[in-house]
Amino acid sequence: MILCTALLTGGNAVAQKPVPVLDDLVPGGATYRSVENLYGLQWWGDVCVKPGVDSLFVVNVRTGKESLLVTRGQVNAVLEARKLPKLPHFYAVKFPWAETNEMLWTSGNMYIAYDFGKEEANVLFTLPGKAADVDFCNGNRRIAYTVGNNLYVDNDQLTREPEGVVCGKSVHRNEFGIRKGTFWSPEGNRLAFYRMDERMVTAYPLVDTGARVARVNDVRYPMAGMTSHKVSIGVYDTRSKETVYLETGDPADRYFTNISWSPDGKAIYLIELNRDQNHSRLCRYDAESGKLLATLIEEKHPRYVEPQNPIVFLPWDATTFIYRSQRDGYNHLYLYNIDGRPVKQLTSGDWLVQDVIGFGVKNRCLFIQSTERSPLQSNIYRVDIPGGKRTLLDGGDGVHKGRLNAAGTYLLDTYTAPGVPRNIRIIDTKKGAGVNLLTAGNPFRDFNMPAIETGTIKAADGVTDLYYRLIKPVDFDPDRKYPAVVYVYGGPHAQMITNGFQHDARGWDIYMATKGYVMFTLDNRGSSNRGLEFENCTFRRLGIEECKDQAKGIEYLKSLPCVDGNRIGVHGWSYGGHMATALMLRYPDSYKAGVAGGPVIDWKYYEVMYGERYMDTPESNPEGYEQGNLNRLAGNLKGHLLLIHDDQDDTCVPQHTFSFMKACVDAGTYPDLFIYPGHKHNVRGRDRIHLYEKITRYFEEKLNIR
Amino acid sequence: MILCTALLTGGNAVAQKPVPVLDDLVPGGATYRSVENLYGLQWWGDVCVKPGVDSLFVVNVRTGKESLLVTRGQVNAVLEARKLPKLPHFYAVKFPWAETNEMLWTSGNMYIAYDFGKEEANVLFTLPGKAADVDFCNGNRRIAYTVGNNLYVDNDQLTREPEGVVCGKSVHRNEFGIRKGTFWSPEGNRLAFYRMDERMVTAYPLVDTGARVARVNDVRYPMAGMTSHKVSIGVYDTRSKETVYLETGDPADRYFTNISWSPDGKAIYLIELNRDQNHSRLCRYDAESGKLLATLIEEKHPRYVEPQNPIVFLPWDATTFIYRSQRDGYNHLYLYNIDGRPVKQLTSGDWLVQDVIGFGVKNRCLFIQSTERSPLQSNIYRVDIPGGKRTLLDGGDGVHKGRLNAAGTYLLDTYTAPGVPRNIRIIDTKKGAGVNLLTAGNPFRDFNMPAIETGTIKAADGVTDLYYRLIKPVDFDPDRKYPAVVYVYGGPHAQMITNGFQHDARGWDIYMATKGYVMFTLDNRGSSNRGLEFENCTFRRLGIEECKDQAKGIEYLKSLPCVDGNRIGVHGWSYGGHMATALMLRYPDSYKAGVAGGPVIDWKYYEVMYGERYMDTPESNPEGYEQGNLNRLAGNLKGHLLLIHDDQDDTCVPQHTFSFMKACVDAGTYPDLFIYPGHKHNVRGRDRIHLYEKITRYFEEKLNIR
Repeated sequence: MILCTALLTGGNAVAQKPVPVLDDLVPGGATYRSVENLYGLQWWGDVCVKPGVDSLFVVNVRTGKESLLVTRGQVNAVLEARKLPKLPHFYAVKFPWAETNEMLWTSGNMYIAYDFGKEEANVLFTLPGKAADVDFCNGNRRIAYTVGNNLYVDNDQLTREPEGVVCGKSVHRNEFGIRKGTFWSPEGNRLAFYRMDERMVTAYPLVDTGARVARVNDVRYPMAGMTSHKVSIGVYDTRSKETVYLETGDPADRYFTNISWSPDGKAIYLIELNRDQNHSRLCRYDAESGKLLATLIEEKHPRYVEPQNPIVFLPWDATTFIYRSQRDGYNHLYLYNIDGRPVKQLTSGDWLVQDVIGFGVKNRCLFIQSTERSPLQSNIYRVDIPGGKRTLLDGGDGVHKGRLNAAGTYLLDTYTAPGVPRNIRIIDTKKGAGVNLLTAGNPFRDFNMPAIETGTIKAADGVTDLYYRLIKPVDFDPDRKYPAVVYVYGGPHAQMITNGFQHDARGWDIYMATKGYVMFTLDNRGSSNRGLEFENCTFRRLGIEECKDQAKGIEYLKSLPCVDGNRIGVHGWSYGGHMATALMLRYPDSYKAGVAGGPVIDWKYYEVMYGERYMDTPESNPEGYEQGNLNRLAGNLKGHLLLIHDDQDDTCVPQHTFSFMKACVDAGTYPDLFIYPGHKHNVRGRDRIHLYEKITRYFEEKLNIR
Repeated sequence: MILCTALLTGGNAVAQKPVPVLDDLVPGGATYRSVENLYGLQWWGDVCVKPGVDSLFVVNVRTGKESLLVTRGQVNAVLEARKLPKLPHFYAVKFPWAETNEMLWTSGNMYIAYDFGKEEANVLFTLPGKAADVDFCNGNRRIAYTVGNNLYVDNDQLTREPEGVVCGKSVHRNEFGIRKGTFWSPEGNRLAFYRMDERMVTAYPLVDTGARVARVNDVRYPMAGMTSHKVSIGVYDTRSKETVYLETGDPADRYFTNISWSPDGKAIYLIELNRDQNHSRLCRYDAESGKLLATLIEEKHPRYVEPQNPIVFLPWDATTFIYRSQRDGYNHLYLYNIDGRPVKQLTSGDWLVQDVIGFGVKNRCLFIQSTERSPLQSNIYRVDIPGGKRTLLDGGDGVHKGRLNAAGTYLLDTYTAPGVPRNIRIIDTKKGAGVNLLTAGNPFRDFNMPAIETGTIKAADGVTDLYYRLIKPVDFDPDRKYPAVVYVYGGPHAQMITNGFQHDARGWDIYMATKGYVMFTLDNRGSSNRGLEFENCTFRRLGIEECKDQAKGIEYLKSLPCVDGNRIGVHGWSYGGHMATALMLRYPDSYKAGVAGGPVIDWKYYEVMYGERYMDTPESNPEGYEQGNLNRLAGNLKGHLLLIHDDQDDTCVPQHTFSFMKACVDAGTYPDLFIYPGHKHNVRGRDRIHLYEKITRYFEEKLNIR
């Protein structure tokens, strides 16, 4: 009835757009407005395919014109005849084989291939029910997977390890760029895989209170300074069905990272790292014997070296590879000869290479994404290898991500910019120009949205520029004073402010702006995309320099006429939870309220790989651990601080937050607490709305009262 | 300086007494004001001894006159010569032997006896370091104790049980009046002991986050409807050093309670109970063979029977014993012949016997404490056994506790009354008169204290009188409207309001009254000291009737002109935590804020013994469990509700509170949470001040804001 009245009388009034609600803005929300996309758009060799629900199209790379490849009806007729499950849509279909007419998808545990030419469907493999870590080899169509802690290829079980030894899974807690545990050789004759013995690692007990009687999920979690797991690398030969292990020597306190294969599939390259993480070695092993063949490149740094990318061979020259290093202060590309002799530095400058997209074989070039245009951007360049010349391909604004076709002649460029929710186009890698495939509409166009600004201030060192993002309240009134909330992350490997859509402002930040808050975020020293020195100035004292920079942010924020300096809050998660807590305790007069989610409280409770890279061990850096231990500062708490932790958090274990509760009880201070049962290191899905409503209510209650 | 000024100018002003602070009022507080006491006052046979720091006195029972028995200097000279640890004071000294001149105490793990006559000190026994459950036999000076899960007598290990089987400890989770696991025969020749096999019971994992890496403390905790432990009773003969087990038959789903010995030490009496707790049997076993000799008394009830007291033989007649039962609706005493033939009902009326203090052999009488004068009181009566005549011995006011001398001629009567913090006197059991030994001063005499009232209202049944306690704010102004907080317990086995000192008002209640709150407590139906029907009307639906009565309390509270009905809070712990949560959810408009500590949320997470007595099993009473499951009502939450749980709570496991957090997240409601690390089912010691400050702040924040 109210709606009807509004519609009837609306004709006379100036239509005032509504503000978005939390559900519109946060993933998991019932009305969440995601940005339009072309799901499943991909290269089939050099052919661009574009899936729909009922049809699959080929897109002409020069004109953008679509032509029908196949309909779902055609495919499903074949599937039905074979009594196979029907295809619900084309979005999840893959085209791994440029040379055949096949597409591939999974239905339940079945890998199904469909041949357009022959109009045939084949079940390539059916995985057992509990298979995980599935790695399909395009080369020979074999499939590697794990069941429990053991590794399988097709129907063969490769390992038979006891509880506490895991094979075929990611190791070293996903640090050093490690994301998986199996690595097929180029032709698929061999499979390299990780084996991790965790039996010597203390188990952290996470308690699942959702069971009839609460039960323990033990997680092998090596904490800083404690005994860590031992990793080795097996190589399985699909022909002989034999496995050899690389002869790396004692695996205790060493990291085996960035596995890659030689183009001929006969050698394996690793970047090995000592536990102190200040000395790396690029090594080549013989895939058949497991013997060490050569140590090609060594790198040392008084703070740390952090290899994150495997070497990549030039497709036209199996004797030369690209090696990435921050040795000159920025992540750049180096060409090396297979003997370890440096050929040349391929890129340089006070910017960094973020990704290698691929190669143009014919033109002897490669394609990269880099921050050359701005530390807030990713732009796509062609780099001519013989001459080193770089050519910007993407127009130069925003944040781009490229996917190259097989020949290296065309790129799918998906990009966003402050006013661009998502554009997708095909770029001709020779000319730089291209055809547009998608201009996504702004999902918030019907809402009254806040203004988002960015700028720079000086860091606490007085020299370094730091980027900030400022979101002004909706219907901003320059004569009013608003409460402000700082959203902070502050740790390495992350950047909060970019020139992406809405400058990467999070949905909750926008929500808070609709409620009358100034929202502020600052990427302090220690964060990513600014080079090595910017990042490693926090070495052995995580949180200290970062807090000093954030204090500069507060100075700036308080200097704004629209900010009520007595009503400033701070919120962050994980490293940002550490920062939010640290800021509340180190600058107790600056912040009236804080919400810290999944915080690191004491670095000795954090894991070995990440923690020791930046902090060394509690034994070798007692002062640093003591300074960074927020339990020691519990007595400083003055404002309102809500700590939130997930009870299944296996990244930042609940001990952080519980030890802080104890420290505050001992110190006579009064934090608040909430626990999200059944979640891991963040609250995702539908419950994320609850989380952000909880956080919002906290700030509403604590900041809006004088 | 401020203090000096106040003192200097104080002469001219009318001295206004200060209000007490939380530390003055709550145990654990730095300035906690406990009521004066005579520590260690006791009977040595018929002699009253009164310890001091440096001297030990004998008190004349007729005149109260003290005479010196021994000085600490005398004792310590002897101890020093023997190179034994010195006695720090006489307060912890015991006089177990009327017939000798000895006193007994423990120093570390040593049991030391000192003989006044011989001026000799003897170490009777030195316990191993980890001894627990120590049971010293006065009869023959043997000592029973446990180390780990096994039982010892002197230096002999009686049991060698695997992990999961415990001997010599209290069983059945301390229900049915069970408080210990060893029972010496009258002369100490035999030791009956409990053996409990818990291997079939699921373990509840409590996590200790105070360790370097959090670790699990597993507690065998049988939950309602699940497999429970199996108890048996061993009898060890100190002469033969043999152990027999009583032939009770299958121990599955049965309770063996209230162990007692026949006067000749040849038979053991048990009250056995089925798992459904509605059928009890008093049984006699042969202590030598372990065989069942007779079943003497059986009792059944459609709801439950709850034996809580062992039988007691008349000292002058080994063929007659006293059996306690609620069979006529109130706990009364019955005389039975050793064959199980009823002799007579010894007490009756709509009041109950709370305790049997002892016997007067010469006069064939016994002494009891009962509620005959008032359900709020305990008064001491002499009951003449032949005639059944009762004589009030204690004057008739307040709450009394008697300790009888060996002959039954004099009683030490410790009592409190609303205006009596603690009085101790010696009563002549024939005349009823006595001499006063202590009139404790009011520890709060220098403070401005609130007025405390009691009264009755009708229960939700419209018939039953319920007692309430009302504490008015300090400096009460009848023209003002105050916020009110209800402190609630509400469960069986407890009574919040008595005619003891300050009507049993808790320190925190008084603190809140100093801050301007009206504090209200009501003993609803289901609570203790009011008889069987009053208690068991909650059967199979715990929490429902109780909440209805509390709603009547709110009606009354709102009818008071001094109460602001829009600012009512509720707080309780354990059963009271259940009640506080249930009231917030069942009457969401009545309470603006609540704090629930260690609450039962879902009875299926509570233990078998207590839970099934009142609720039966989840299988046999699904509707009752469903109705009482507060997770089901999580969506009703409207006001502010803080749940507090201890992370080591092995009485009401943390699963209750965590499951409620999950239920509220699912239902989209917003409770608050706090966890006290390292505490069990309540926060004691110094941290208790933190707890009550936390609770106070919550009500301050939520109730004082309109």
